[in-house]
Amino acid sequence: MARSHLSVSHLLGIKDLTVSDIEQIFQTADEFMNVLSRPIKKVPSLNDICVANLFFENSTRTRVSFELAERRLSADIVNFSASTSSVAKGETLLDTVQNILAMKVDMIVIRHSKPGAPHFLARHIQANIINAGDGTHEHPTQALLDGYTLLQKFGTLKGLKVGILGDILHSRVALSNIFLLNKLGAEVKVCAPPTLLPKYVESLGVTIEYDRTKFLNWCDAVNVLRIQLERQNIRYFPSSREYTTLFGITPEVLAGISKPLTILHPGPINRGVELTTEVADSPQALILDQVTHGVAVRMAVLYLLAGR
Amino acid sequence: MARSHLSVSHLLGIKDLTVSDIEQIFQTADEFMNVLSRPIKKVPSLNDICVANLFFENSTRTRVSFELAERRLSADIVNFSASTSSVAKGETLLDTVQNILAMKVDMIVIRHSKPGAPHFLARHIQANIINAGDGTHEHPTQALLDGYTLLQKFGTLKGLKVGILGDILHSRVALSNIFLLNKLGAEVKVCAPPTLLPKYVESLGVTIEYDRTKFLNWCDAVNVLRIQLERQNIRYFPSSREYTTLFGITPEVLAGISKPLTILHPGPINRGVELTTEVADSPQALILDQVTHGVAVRMAVLYLLAGR
Amino acid sequence: MARSHLSVSHLLGIKDLTVSDIEQIFQTADEFMNVLSRPIKKVPSLNDICVANLFFENSTRTRVSFELAERRLSADIVNFSASTSSVAKGETLLDTVQNILAMKVDMIVIRHSKPGAPHFLARHIQANIINAGDGTHEHPTQALLDGYTLLQKFGTLKGLKVGILGDILHSRVALSNIFLLNKLGAEVKVCAPPTLLPKYVESLGVTIEYDRTKFLNWCDAVNVLRIQLERQNIRYFPSSREYTTLFGITPEVLAGISKPLTILHPGPINRGVELTTEVADSPQALILDQVTHGVAVRMAVLYLLAGR
Repeated sequence: MARSHLSVSHLLGIKDLTVSDIEQIFQTADEFMNVLSRPIKKVPSLNDICVANLFFENSTRTRVSFELAERRLSADIVNFSASTSSVAKGETLLDTVQNILAMKVDMIVIRHSKPGAPHFLARHIQANIINAGDGTHEHPTQALLDGYTLLQKFGTLKGLKVGILGDILHSRVALSNIFLLNKLGAEVKVCAPPTLLPKYVESLGVTIEYDRTKFLNWCDAVNVLRIQLERQNIRYFPSSREYTTLFGITPEVLAGISKPLTILHPGPINRGVELTTEVADSPQALILDQVTHGVAVRMAVLYLLAGR
Repeated sequence: MARSHLSVSHLLGIKDLTVSDIEQIFQTADEFMNVLSRPIKKVPSLNDICVANLFFENSTRTRVSFELAERRLSADIVNFSASTSSVAKGETLLDTVQNILAMKVDMIVIRHSKPGAPHFLARHIQANIINAGDGTHEHPTQALLDGYTLLQKFGTLKGLKVGILGDILHSRVALSNIFLLNKLGAEVKVCAPPTLLPKYVESLGVTIEYDRTKFLNWCDAVNVLRIQLERQNIRYFPSSREYTTLFGITPEVLAGISKPLTILHPGPINRGVELTTEVADSPQALILDQVTHGVAVRMAVLYLLAGR
Repeated sequence: MARSHLSVSHLLGIKDLTVSDIEQIFQTADEFMNVLSRPIKKVPSLNDICVANLFFENSTRTRVSFELAERRLSADIVNFSASTSSVAKGETLLDTVQNILAMKVDMIVIRHSKPGAPHFLARHIQANIINAGDGTHEHPTQALLDGYTLLQKFGTLKGLKVGILGDILHSRVALSNIFLLNKLGAEVKVCAPPTLLPKYVESLGVTIEYDRTKFLNWCDAVNVLRIQLERQNIRYFPSSREYTTLFGITPEVLAGISKPLTILHPGPINRGVELTTEVADSPQALILDQVTHGVAVRMAVLYLLAGR
């Protein structure tokens, strides 16, 4: 594998990456997709690296995906989850992380409910930091795996028309995707109830379309966001049923679209809310491909940040 | 180790196994008992296999036993426990598992509170599934390790008189044991308060004896079940003390039995309830042997399901 | 590495160690500090050993430190934390541990809220036990890493004047440190509000000084204890602010001391309570060195208890 270097020493957000960074990650992910198709899905690349996975928010798919990526690179792993740790003792985040680093840990994968938590750490510590989701801010590896999935499907993102549908306001997936798609030359349109759109959204370089049918007719691919009922303290729409009626994707909705539509979803799916089961399980939905690509993309990020 | 194949690609329950399957598992466990007596208790057999341990119910002994079995076969391991995962986000079980499989996981060990959860998964996914306990239904590896323990003690299960004492109604251990003992030619008698016996129990090929002394006098070995106070929403017997008086095993009870009696217990023991401490710690109780055999039996199941 | 043997087969407390034991641990830790400075921070020393980490109390730094120590010695690891286990099922501690040992586990690292829990286990089981903190009693690896840090700084502990400041009453760190410092020939003085000093403290071979300035002027090094607000059911002092005023270490307090002072803290720090941020992050505070030394010291303890 050719030696290459990213312009950054942390993956805090897509906002900080150059186009060349993203292309390197995608090319490296190609090679790891090959590794993942072998009987023994491991390489010794990071056998001198110790990674700490610090999940201050519970997680299944992102945590397991990172852990498998690390294992397949032969890294040593230390896991830390809020439920089994002494976070309640009132230590600062920086002290917790500096303590773990003092044990000779090289890389930190962190999920935290506070936007900017990994950025704050990056200003104070030496280890490479990977943001695995910081509140409603960014989720860069999700955007990378989404972009990689589109690249596999369409060959290029240049000029691709990508829609993002759903709760843009609370979605770190949406923000990271918008940054990535813009950098790679895709056109981006968002569609959501007005209450779930941030005021500044057009300043990010996207257009808005409130009408689901017009929106979907425009799209080559649509990234359908999860309605994060557990993040909402107030009601942004009257009911799940009304949301589905106006913004859900059903076979009937797809029947009214004039071109084939590729569907992404970051998971976990609320079946029957943003997607019906028929749509989620149809060949045009690449949801499980996204998951597979996620491991390869995370392996690529770890590998490149380690300077390999 | 001779190559052999089970008739099933999942271990969902003892009900589905042939006698030959069980014998293969026991013979393979013999070889792994040898491995476990070496200084380095590991073999590289499953170094190309990734196993996900999905414990939707908390567990100590079964989880640790599977994890050690996997480690000693050199499998890669991903752990998932309800308390650190995003199960609360409302994803379906099938979506959770399909996501994990899309990350190139080969085998799933699952404990779930719903009877049939592993069977449901087996109808929809490709990976090998091992049921580590599904609600009150089956707990096949427990029955295999119980049967293996009896085999070590008695040389054969054919014609052996095995009693099962206690909460048959809620016990997945009882059901899996009844299936296994019947298949291997043992005679099975159950003893419990009437409220803790399922109505259909005799149709499973067992006889009932309500009198503890008559019951124990009949048995060569008795599998004493745990009173699962934490599973009972209603009261099935007046008090722990009354249960002990009528169904507990104490030195006084054993003194009244005319032949030596071998005692099994799946753990965790409620000392002083179903067994007194003197009985639990006596040489006729094989409780810790069961635990040791459990690792070897689970290694055998993993090894054989992987097609080795 | 020269073969050596401790006088004990468990590390239950500093109280049981000989001076020679402590010196062997420190010399072995020196060698592991070298390992930790290499690119690949691993040795195969314990590749035939399986260690169970049983954390009945939540923990971050101690658990992660032990786990990294074990990994770097190539031991197999099984983790058990109260939040994902079936402790709630009412099994006795001894049964839980004997079950895990029956799975062929060689060493037990245990943290438990009850003083004496590891000692009780040691009387009943065969495996090597390491006490990772038992209630308010001992925390021997913390005292070893504190002592090792002082040794690195001062070259010897003989005649060194070491102060312990803060909640001596509830602190297992204080008790283990007092034992270790006395054994190695240091002089020990304690300083705390009277309500946070145990009545018998002088019988442990320490002197008391209530005046912070006099106390600090006496010390070569001070081990500043954490105010464990989460362990206190009753109020031992009026407020955190008053505690800081009388017993906290601030730049102003240090400016009034006549000699350079080395500062230790076992973490996690309550910044602004027992130490201000300026002090905690100053070069005279060796807090992160302690953490690094902790991994090497724990590697040494594991290595020596395994008879290597």
